[in-house]
Amino acid sequence: MAKVNRSEMEEFLSKEFPQANFLIESFDEDSVTIRRTVTTEDLRPGGTVSGPTMMSLADCAIYIAILREIGLVALAVTTSLNFNFLRKPVASKDILGVCKMLKLGRTLAVAEVTIYSDGDDRPVAHSVGTYSIPPNK
Amino acid sequence: MAKVNRSEMEEFLSKEFPQANFLIESFDEDSVTIRRTVTTEDLRPGGTVSGPTMMSLADCAIYIAILREIGLVALAVTTSLNFNFLRKPVASKDILGVCKMLKLGRTLAVAEVTIYSDGDDRPVAHSVGTYSIPPNK
Amino acid sequence: MAKVNRSEMEEFLSKEFPQANFLIESFDEDSVTIRRTVTTEDLRPGGTVSGPTMMSLADCAIYIAILREIGLVALAVTTSLNFNFLRKPVASKDILGVCKMLKLGRTLAVAEVTIYSDGDDRPVAHSVGTYSIPPNK
Amino acid sequence: MAKVNRSEMEEFLSKEFPQANFLIESFDEDSVTIRRTVTTEDLRPGGTVSGPTMMSLADCAIYIAILREIGLVALAVTTSLNFNFLRKPVASKDILGVCKMLKLGRTLAVAEVTIYSDGDDRPVAHSVGTYSIPPNK
Repeated sequence: MAKVNRSEMEEFLSKEFPQANFLIESFDEDSVTIRRTVTTEDLRPGGTVSGPTMMSLADCAIYIAILREIGLVALAVTTSLNFNFLRKPVASKDILGVCKMLKLGRTLAVAEVTIYSDGDDRPVAHSVGTYSIPPNK
Repeated sequence: MAKVNRSEMEEFLSKEFPQANFLIESFDEDSVTIRRTVTTEDLRPGGTVSGPTMMSLADCAIYIAILREIGLVALAVTTSLNFNFLRKPVASKDILGVCKMLKLGRTLAVAEVTIYSDGDDRPVAHSVGTYSIPPNK
Repeated sequence: MAKVNRSEMEEFLSKEFPQANFLIESFDEDSVTIRRTVTTEDLRPGGTVSGPTMMSLADCAIYIAILREIGLVALAVTTSLNFNFLRKPVASKDILGVCKMLKLGRTLAVAEVTIYSDGDDRPVAHSVGTYSIPPNK
Repeated sequence: MAKVNRSEMEEFLSKEFPQANFLIESFDEDSVTIRRTVTTEDLRPGGTVSGPTMMSLADCAIYIAILREIGLVALAVTTSLNFNFLRKPVASKDILGVCKMLKLGRTLAVAEVTIYSDGDDRPVAHSVGTYSIPPNK
């Protein structure tokens, strides 16, 4: 079903986003997991990972999940992102975003991302995002 | 962990909400599923289930999922509900809402609900809701 | 700018939704206000207006705000609705939804609705909704 | 009503967030406006401002709007953020976030933020956020 395999996606990402600080952790049939190394500038006072760092991870995980279905040429654009912050992430750990597609329509895709601190299975945040897909995909 | 079992919940619901048109479909360890019979007044032109009917199901599924964790006395109140409509539900089928808790804090609970038309495993809607839990629960 | 005036909209609504229990309260250049009479079946225990009643008002206000811009023939469909419940509405009062368009694109419209109990200027709920607009509008 | 005036807030922000790249643009009775200078690292390919940059502005605007009402000591925490992206922001312009409180309760605050590119009155994004306020504020 997917139009793009893992190595094609990794090649695409390293070419298009050379400065990106995330990695594909897994590329399963029904989900994509992205790992982001947390650096000092991602932290907030109190020793926690900043909201925008988590939002950036969620946005990126959805983007990758959509591109592998519709192909690397398409110009998908985020139209909305809903975010719930559930627990304080651990500052010294990477964060992982597990993305599942809820709908992949002709013009709109909806996906959910659950975010974890590495090594803990209680989610630190949950996000639902919608992307607009250009007509001539 | 749960403070309320299935038969206690059913007794509570039939006493407190005698007019409710939903049933507990399953009461698993990590999820609660609610079934709602779709009646003529729940339908919209074009033969589909109305948005408010699905929102009502989602809200109710979260309420039940919280009460079974905190007990039947608490007065939990919806504070937000985010809804994505994914596919047109089938008018002639019941709708099912599968609710999973994302967080159960002292003062705030967050849960997600995925809604299906009976017999189809592609979700018709997805919702994330937050409830405020009164201090002296 | 608007393609539909107030009397055209009222005629359309009474024809297409004869059973609807709302009225156009005002039809200003930058907002539309809808009034909904609260009936016994819209109430919840504790003497308050149910969430689905308010959600239905919000959805309907956005629908009317979009149709007056794109014309009465279009088949706009709700794709998402985000809802924050702010205060307990008064059971004995009508509710009013004031809708402002945030964006009217070719394929997607976004609008916000602020809901009040009649006679009180503190909002009881706030909603943001997105609608998908069919290509050949 | 507000417990903190503009100069007190500016002093607090420069002490607590010395690295922050935003300024208070206005501090009106019913709204707070924050200006963020857009730097090269805030941009995305295609010459637009990144989503996380706008989300960071929204989060920060709400934080400031709440603190001025409850005082500078409180430890308010973001619990949810809903974001709609409306138009492509202009890369060469600052972004401005106008924040209005929707509700300031004892334990929960809800506010909306409308984001603009400097010099254009059509919103580029709209956000609604909720913050949890600690009990002993």
